Amino acid sequence: MTSSPRISATHGKPYTIGLVQMRCDGSPAENLKKAIAMLEKAAAQGVQVACLPELFLGPYFCQQEDAAQFDLAEPVPGATTEALGKIAKKTGLTILASIFEKRAAGMCHNTLVLILPNGALGGIYRKMHIPDDPHFHEKYYFTPGDLGFRSFTTPEGRKIGTLVCWDQWFPEAARLTALQGAEVIFYPTAIGWMPSEKQQLGAAQADAWETVQRGHAIANGVYVAAVNRIGYEGAKKDGLEFWGGSFIADPFGRVLARASRDKEEIITAVVDPALQEETRRAWPFFRDRRIEHYGALSAHHGSLPEEKP
Amino acid sequence: MTSSPRISATHGKPYTIGLVQMRCDGSPAENLKKAIAMLEKAAAQGVQVACLPELFLGPYFCQQEDAAQFDLAEPVPGATTEALGKIAKKTGLTILASIFEKRAAGMCHNTLVLILPNGALGGIYRKMHIPDDPHFHEKYYFTPGDLGFRSFTTPEGRKIGTLVCWDQWFPEAARLTALQGAEVIFYPTAIGWMPSEKQQLGAAQADAWETVQRGHAIANGVYVAAVNRIGYEGAKKDGLEFWGGSFIADPFGRVLARASRDKEEIITAVVDPALQEETRRAWPFFRDRRIEHYGALSAHHGSLPEEKP
Repeated sequence: MTSSPRISATHGKPYTIGLVQMRCDGSPAENLKKAIAMLEKAAAQGVQVACLPELFLGPYFCQQEDAAQFDLAEPVPGATTEALGKIAKKTGLTILASIFEKRAAGMCHNTLVLILPNGALGGIYRKMHIPDDPHFHEKYYFTPGDLGFRSFTTPEGRKIGTLVCWDQWFPEAARLTALQGAEVIFYPTAIGWMPSEKQQLGAAQADAWETVQRGHAIANGVYVAAVNRIGYEGAKKDGLEFWGGSFIADPFGRVLARASRDKEEIITAVVDPALQEETRRAWPFFRDRRIEHYGALSAHHGSLPEEKP
Repeated sequence: MTSSPRISATHGKPYTIGLVQMRCDGSPAENLKKAIAMLEKAAAQGVQVACLPELFLGPYFCQQEDAAQFDLAEPVPGATTEALGKIAKKTGLTILASIFEKRAAGMCHNTLVLILPNGALGGIYRKMHIPDDPHFHEKYYFTPGDLGFRSFTTPEGRKIGTLVCWDQWFPEAARLTALQGAEVIFYPTAIGWMPSEKQQLGAAQADAWETVQRGHAIANGVYVAAVNRIGYEGAKKDGLEFWGGSFIADPFGRVLARASRDKEEIITAVVDPALQEETRRAWPFFRDRRIEHYGALSAHHGSLPEEKP
């Protein structure tokens, strides 16, 4: 399942992706500065497509419901996409960055932007699945995305799928993104342990998080790249310890790179479209989907009559 | 994420499931006799719902396309469901068994039958996703199922989801089965290594197989129980080494029991509906599905316009 000379179909050239795992508890200006420095370092290492963690500009404000936090929202395009456009142009990077998007007064999204190497805004994805749980009050802040699931083909011919954090638990999201042609799906993330749960459940939670995304890689024959923040944020015994563990998996679900739980670092891997082609030939799941029987995926539980023997 | 006294919702009682991992290279009569003996042993161990491997009555005949193999097909209900009905009645087991179903002259299915403790045929599921690859020529033998995806509620109130082998790579199959109420999804399987690939890819293939199914458990908050055969079948250097490794995972994706790669054995675990309830409360994915945006799951790749920046 390594890239093979036997595969001669038309497909793109390999490219290097990088995930910037960082602490995000500083001010927006500090975090932007650090992100830019790490992006420059990534580019110097040969990274061509880089992704920052979810809402990297500041602490994860969704731990509480606080109307003042809406001051952090900004338009897209705006100051942050402009700053990142400059660094993209300078370095030649394609950049994926997660922004608290202000779309209108009192109406915001959790948005992933694609910045092209010429500095232009190449596209946006608005987070479709919005969580709301203790410490993750996102339904208070974010209107669910209305753009659907997306894969973008860059001018270099790279096929970039875009999802965000909570989306990573939904097989529908990965499938719909892959069906649009993605070679790699990026998942900027802010996920962590509650101190009260970590000892009993921490290992299982982090393992489930990685496993379900490796499952998407396997089921869809697609690279998956998840980038998380690190560090402790919030009240001393009642905050969140972001668990890092950013990783890149290949279309066979093999982990190519995995970051630490507690260090700022850049991890990289090569996305090889030939390996995607070869993996899907070996296990041709897309060939065998029973699309005429999937209609009930557009319904909730119990919408179908249950079989009773 | 252990079963908690905090959960007081209405849900069923825990029950014990068992997977019968066996060699299947004997005659139908020999395999039926062995299966019955192992089912009796499972019942004696306290198993309440037991599942046999895919097409357990004989060698995996789909390695070749051979019209004579259609002689193995039998009606459902028929001799095998009758024999299993007797053992179900004797032991009190609910039994899931995979049968080469003859539906009409020249028209067969790969069918999973549910046999109730009173010996009656409780329901059938016809394999929906049919593979066709070297050594797995199933499209030659089996018409794809026309019954859709199913969960059965037994008279005891247990909610049993039924899928078969190749289905296990399709997130749509697990999701649709879970949406119908399954507490546990059974996957009888016949999967193995080709000698020419085992050294390079064997570990990754078996790991991907387990990982994608653990992913279904996590994404759907459902127990998953996959039962494979063991042993080498077919031409000496060009056959299949079935890799065993039957396993049961809980709704958090944790592996509760895992069989060897090469021994006949019974593995068991308790399915606790209270743990399903608790897991889904902690990570409420079903709450947040964006059903109005899933329509394109009923289409193939490229049916949607691709985004070009």
